[in-house]
Amino acid sequence: MTEPLIDTAAAARAYELDRAHVFHSWSAQARIDPMVVSAARGSYVWDGEGTRYLDFSSQLVNTNIGHQHPRVVEAIKAQADRLCTIAPQHVNDQRSEAARLICELTPGALDKVFFTNGGADAIEHAVRMARLHTGRYKVLSGYRSYHGGTSTAINLTGDPRRWPNDYGAAGTVHFFGPFPYRSPFHSSSPEEETERALRHLEEVIAFEGPDSFAAIVLESVPGTAGIMPPPPGYLAGVRALADRYGIVFVADEVMAGFGRTGRWFAIERDGVVPDLMTFAKGVNSGYVPLGGVALGDRIADTFAERPFPGGLTYSGHPLATAAAVATINVMKDEGVVENADLIGETVLGPGLRELAERHPCVGEVRGMGVFWALDLVGDRATKEPLAPYGGTSAAMTELVAACKAGGMIPMTNYHRLHVVPPCTISADEAREGLEALDKALTVADRHTVDG
Amino acid sequence: MTEPLIDTAAAARAYELDRAHVFHSWSAQARIDPMVVSAARGSYVWDGEGTRYLDFSSQLVNTNIGHQHPRVVEAIKAQADRLCTIAPQHVNDQRSEAARLICELTPGALDKVFFTNGGADAIEHAVRMARLHTGRYKVLSGYRSYHGGTSTAINLTGDPRRWPNDYGAAGTVHFFGPFPYRSPFHSSSPEEETERALRHLEEVIAFEGPDSFAAIVLESVPGTAGIMPPPPGYLAGVRALADRYGIVFVADEVMAGFGRTGRWFAIERDGVVPDLMTFAKGVNSGYVPLGGVALGDRIADTFAERPFPGGLTYSGHPLATAAAVATINVMKDEGVVENADLIGETVLGPGLRELAERHPCVGEVRGMGVFWALDLVGDRATKEPLAPYGGTSAAMTELVAACKAGGMIPMTNYHRLHVVPPCTISADEAREGLEALDKALTVADRHTVDG
Repeated sequence: MTEPLIDTAAAARAYELDRAHVFHSWSAQARIDPMVVSAARGSYVWDGEGTRYLDFSSQLVNTNIGHQHPRVVEAIKAQADRLCTIAPQHVNDQRSEAARLICELTPGALDKVFFTNGGADAIEHAVRMARLHTGRYKVLSGYRSYHGGTSTAINLTGDPRRWPNDYGAAGTVHFFGPFPYRSPFHSSSPEEETERALRHLEEVIAFEGPDSFAAIVLESVPGTAGIMPPPPGYLAGVRALADRYGIVFVADEVMAGFGRTGRWFAIERDGVVPDLMTFAKGVNSGYVPLGGVALGDRIADTFAERPFPGGLTYSGHPLATAAAVATINVMKDEGVVENADLIGETVLGPGLRELAERHPCVGEVRGMGVFWALDLVGDRATKEPLAPYGGTSAAMTELVAACKAGGMIPMTNYHRLHVVPPCTISADEAREGLEALDKALTVADRHTVDG
Repeated sequence: MTEPLIDTAAAARAYELDRAHVFHSWSAQARIDPMVVSAARGSYVWDGEGTRYLDFSSQLVNTNIGHQHPRVVEAIKAQADRLCTIAPQHVNDQRSEAARLICELTPGALDKVFFTNGGADAIEHAVRMARLHTGRYKVLSGYRSYHGGTSTAINLTGDPRRWPNDYGAAGTVHFFGPFPYRSPFHSSSPEEETERALRHLEEVIAFEGPDSFAAIVLESVPGTAGIMPPPPGYLAGVRALADRYGIVFVADEVMAGFGRTGRWFAIERDGVVPDLMTFAKGVNSGYVPLGGVALGDRIADTFAERPFPGGLTYSGHPLATAAAVATINVMKDEGVVENADLIGETVLGPGLRELAERHPCVGEVRGMGVFWALDLVGDRATKEPLAPYGGTSAAMTELVAACKAGGMIPMTNYHRLHVVPPCTISADEAREGLEALDKALTVADRHTVDG
């Protein structure tokens, strides 16, 4: 790969203006020292000095086809020349084609798409559809989840970012999902975890009012909260409970969808069809902001003669949907989903498990495809997390610094390190990242009782 | 202007796929027959048959620089070649420069920008900032307003689209704003309207609890709800009330901002500086989805050492902010804001008032710049609206059809027709639209007591 030319003076200026004028998300503004990203290609990014990093984060787990895929860049440029924007009430050919392609990929008969700008507003609209379809208000969601930053989405979220936003969350009921490694149900096998988690969910429904729930909102594989693939039978059990109580099953595939798990959608692995499915990120790798909700006729028909009371100016934006059309076609033509599956099976899975054997700080490795979490602990016996829930620690700070010093950008969340590279990553690149991770984990090992 | 080549077969296919797979906003899905837009340039769009229409709607009042401005299209293409997407936690040069340009234009010392994907999430984040800054929960907003489709935004909205979404709206208090033509305060002059509207607002605050309000959210000129420029002194009075009670003043400039009123921001006309200002649409004419909140140090400092608990994957998206940089520079270089002002003063204002004299269906003409409403009535004496609140009527349906038959696309809302062309519209184009409107209004006249 030829190295991109980096204008270090421009990068310094960008940094200075950022600190003067850009208010950053999820941050204490005085406590951050953000990295300038001056260029990016495939699995790599370059900072303002021209140092190259392997992007094991896919930014916010969104660049599933890697950075700057030439066919998608060309499609965006071609559509920019044709038509950048048009209102949602009109018909646009790129929006139509993106909807067709997405409906072709979704499980079951989810044959319609409502487009949004991202994942949070996809959740907002999915909950709206479920509430109006059922005539009920309350919504179930899991602890250890993330569903977005707008009002309904953040109140459904089950991580500490919800707490300071917990105004007017009436009607949101959180339950515990299955998590064998840190089982809330004291189970001793995945099968037992599934059975107990389903019994817990049904008990919550019983005590909260079986007829009061509009929706259950669930990440098919919870992502930011820890990449916890549900044990066998769990999602099918949730589907059955939803059917029993007339609850709309909303599968949130914003992070897990579009190849991340080595399938087009994570829920395919369980053979379950949700009533509504939200997506964003991987649908066009975030090259242009886009999200949406896929729905079937049963819910769509609720709004056949009665107006759907939701919308947004950029619903089905031509430039965003043109990027989705190109991205999906690239993923099909180049076997991107199959690559993610293969890399997970042959490089990342075995490689991370091998690291876990040698590094006492790794409590558990879980995941699939290009969607992996290392659950880091100070003590394997007690499973004490290497950082407190909702916080950080010297161990985690040093670990991230060591990864970057080794030329690799990880994604971290509290006591976990997530390995979430693009779905297009090569075996060699994945091995390069594992080597950097190997070195960095020795730093974290020092913070363990065994280190 | 050379006519674009229209592929009618592709347009027919786009229509068919749209009806099969696209779920439309704010609509009863079986009751719509959307128009295919195959091409657009400047102030015009072309349908699937190649028929040209003057775009008096700016789509959803967002294409302030018209369609397909070559400099902005080039900037998007250049940035697509450089870097499409990067996570919000990093620094990007286009985001930095867009923030600098926006802060330079905003009134007062609103020197920081938090970027979102559009207007609704800008409102969500502005309210979050206000709540956490004040430690209070309740928020004031006006009837006859629109603030977006996500949970908090729709609950703040004061139009019928809120009703089916009114779940968990605890803490949202609506009040009446000034509206001389249909005064809720029985006033007989703009001055009296201002005074009575402010007294009403202060009474609402008194009875709801003066120490309970985090924010007052107000469109500087309410847009979708009727383009009602506040009478002199009203916004200054609101500013004073906000100061008196420690309430954060959020000016929503999503529709009114970036040239629409013949000023960069509508609130400039009143010489008032809000605490938070939301924007979207015109910031880059919607060429790429973008919105944001401008804030000053006072609120930013609340989140200096304490994390701001909000964010989104595409905050400060490089492609979207590159489009904003180009759009703002185009608007400066080409005098786009000045053009909007001039067209309002010399063509649209006088022309619409002249139409009002001849057409009994026009109850009132109000607006400025390229932001005008015709308040249509069945009876000028009683001011009975030509369609019921939240609904439509034969008169309005026929009026819209007549506009389209005359080669012009208006924006309508209940009993109003809004004339909201691009800020770049020429005097000749504006006159062409007025001629089409003149003919169309004769159709509506037939539904009046005088017609």
